[in-house]
Amino acid sequence: MGYDDLYPPQRLAAAQRAAAEAGLDALLISPGSDLRYLTGYHAHAQERLTLLVLPAYGEPTLVVPALERPAAEASPAPRTGVRIVDHPDGGDPYPLVVRALDGPVRTVGLGNRMWAEQALALRAALPDTTQRLAGDVLRSLRLRKSPAELDALREAGAAIDAVHARMARWLRPGRTENQVAADIAAAIREAGHATADFTIVAAGPNGASPHHGSSDRPIGVGEPVVVDIGGTMPSGYRSDATRCYVIGPPPPDFAEYYQVLHAAQRAAVGAVRPGVTAEAVDSVAREVIADAGYGAAFLHRTGHGIGLDGHEDPYLVAGNNLPLEAGMAFSIEPGIYLGGRHGARIEDIVACTPDGAQRFNTVSRELVQL
Amino acid sequence: MGYDDLYPPQRLAAAQRAAAEAGLDALLISPGSDLRYLTGYHAHAQERLTLLVLPAYGEPTLVVPALERPAAEASPAPRTGVRIVDHPDGGDPYPLVVRALDGPVRTVGLGNRMWAEQALALRAALPDTTQRLAGDVLRSLRLRKSPAELDALREAGAAIDAVHARMARWLRPGRTENQVAADIAAAIREAGHATADFTIVAAGPNGASPHHGSSDRPIGVGEPVVVDIGGTMPSGYRSDATRCYVIGPPPPDFAEYYQVLHAAQRAAVGAVRPGVTAEAVDSVAREVIADAGYGAAFLHRTGHGIGLDGHEDPYLVAGNNLPLEAGMAFSIEPGIYLGGRHGARIEDIVACTPDGAQRFNTVSRELVQL
Repeated sequence: MGYDDLYPPQRLAAAQRAAAEAGLDALLISPGSDLRYLTGYHAHAQERLTLLVLPAYGEPTLVVPALERPAAEASPAPRTGVRIVDHPDGGDPYPLVVRALDGPVRTVGLGNRMWAEQALALRAALPDTTQRLAGDVLRSLRLRKSPAELDALREAGAAIDAVHARMARWLRPGRTENQVAADIAAAIREAGHATADFTIVAAGPNGASPHHGSSDRPIGVGEPVVVDIGGTMPSGYRSDATRCYVIGPPPPDFAEYYQVLHAAQRAAVGAVRPGVTAEAVDSVAREVIADAGYGAAFLHRTGHGIGLDGHEDPYLVAGNNLPLEAGMAFSIEPGIYLGGRHGARIEDIVACTPDGAQRFNTVSRELVQL
Repeated sequence: MGYDDLYPPQRLAAAQRAAAEAGLDALLISPGSDLRYLTGYHAHAQERLTLLVLPAYGEPTLVVPALERPAAEASPAPRTGVRIVDHPDGGDPYPLVVRALDGPVRTVGLGNRMWAEQALALRAALPDTTQRLAGDVLRSLRLRKSPAELDALREAGAAIDAVHARMARWLRPGRTENQVAADIAAAIREAGHATADFTIVAAGPNGASPHHGSSDRPIGVGEPVVVDIGGTMPSGYRSDATRCYVIGPPPPDFAEYYQVLHAAQRAAVGAVRPGVTAEAVDSVAREVIADAGYGAAFLHRTGHGIGLDGHEDPYLVAGNNLPLEAGMAFSIEPGIYLGGRHGARIEDIVACTPDGAQRFNTVSRELVQL
């Protein structure tokens, strides 16, 4: 997978056109996924200002700390034609931003995850400028993945599936959730990820809390275990997959609602096709679970988009009437949670294709009995 | 180290007093170090709103996503007396924020690292409210570490020293920087860190770029290697230490300027005492290096504060006339960088005590020849 395919240099021009159409005179993008998407430059947020100044019309400028200049120059950013200017430690970098805008601007779009200290400093440096969010224009670009991006997500899905496939090595009675999570984190990197981003190992009652991480609680025989794990590949694209395990036979009521959950996840995946709305897919999963009497136990939305961020548009949630399109990629992860007892969630990353959903996670979705 | 010592419940009251003195009617704090410092709640930034609403006068409220409520309730936050309210997926959480403020507010302080999308949503929800930065009041609280915080930083320093002490196992000719960095990342966790945050392994010419990460470039005999590594302990406090290594004899000019660098770092540490300004310590290191003719090769400030964030106040940089006080903790890390050839940096975390600097990194600062 060539870098130019994954991070094509012409994205800056596309973002400039989108900004102009949205009535934004410039986009101001700090380190994070938006910057990487637009330039290929993988910079970390820090107190020193790094900022892409992208006028709707005119020359793009990348403002970087002096000591980050070598990293910026070694990144794919120069291929986009962006001009790099730097500022030394202790200096005020905001005059460089004003100069890079090359004239007064009425409205700028700030990267959605820019730090407030930078947003307020930009308000002070550009007092007559209205601030909006760059996401208003970048969302629609990042929402539709290119073939290279879909390949990168497929590669990430295969890598995390390989970790789930090894779970029996680590899930043993008496081992703590933290011990298992540490093994999983190492395996996520061994499987080809650059970083292990999260390792949820939620056994028994902890499984009833959807965002439980892991704890020093030993895992017991007969306790269902929700394992929700993911990382970031060297490409920058993310993995995220959830499977359920149990050491020995599961509680009978768990086995029953697990089948309901499995059917709900299957139905939601089956409902994906271009033109269907994001909330419609959520409803399909919710109805299967509600019809079985577990509606109140499905505590969260059905899914989230994924790409350079672990959570991004589109969100599969009531109220989101966005029609799905081929090229969109997102999780489908219904869950059933019985407070104080146990819970279950089944999650795959899928891409919307002209023919429906294509799964990027293919490891068995059956309850794995160890 | 008890959690109540490290995250005392009365910090909310202290922050309220400081906010009132600064003319802020409320602080609005999103997930991150400020939230953890104030409540002990370790939440991750995400698209779902988690926000501590802390009026200068009145009851504090923690707004959380419904599915994070169990995590928030299990965290130390409830011990602070904060009221927890939640919002479901797909709902608008901002009315909860307005209600929690319990009346009109003229000026609020936003957490410095709050995402712009939340800062702008808060501006829309509170159109008549002036936004400033919570850092204006929290900085002075977080700047002075408690004995428990200094113990946590000492523990982190010992953990990262243990990793440097094992470096000979991983630094072998022909191994790539990435391979060595992966070994170091695993060792950082084995040494007791909850996460490995950064693993700079910069050999030969890469060492001349202060913020080079690691690459697939094999490390050669006679190449100086800058190893700058750190992580986050389960306590939440960070480690950060840099040492230099070389496989075989170093280049003669490197050996010479390494001694200059070592003397500069020693002199800067020796200059630390209450009442001395942050910039004065920077000048001490800079003068030693400049007097030896390497002034232009010292590309960055001398140091940064450390605590729950890897980089925080105080910054040891020209222009910062903040007088140091006992309890402040920061890095002292001068560097010399010869573009295209090699570079060196020596970094310790130190605390300012009434008697001067106390080092939290004690592993040898001599050039380690492998």
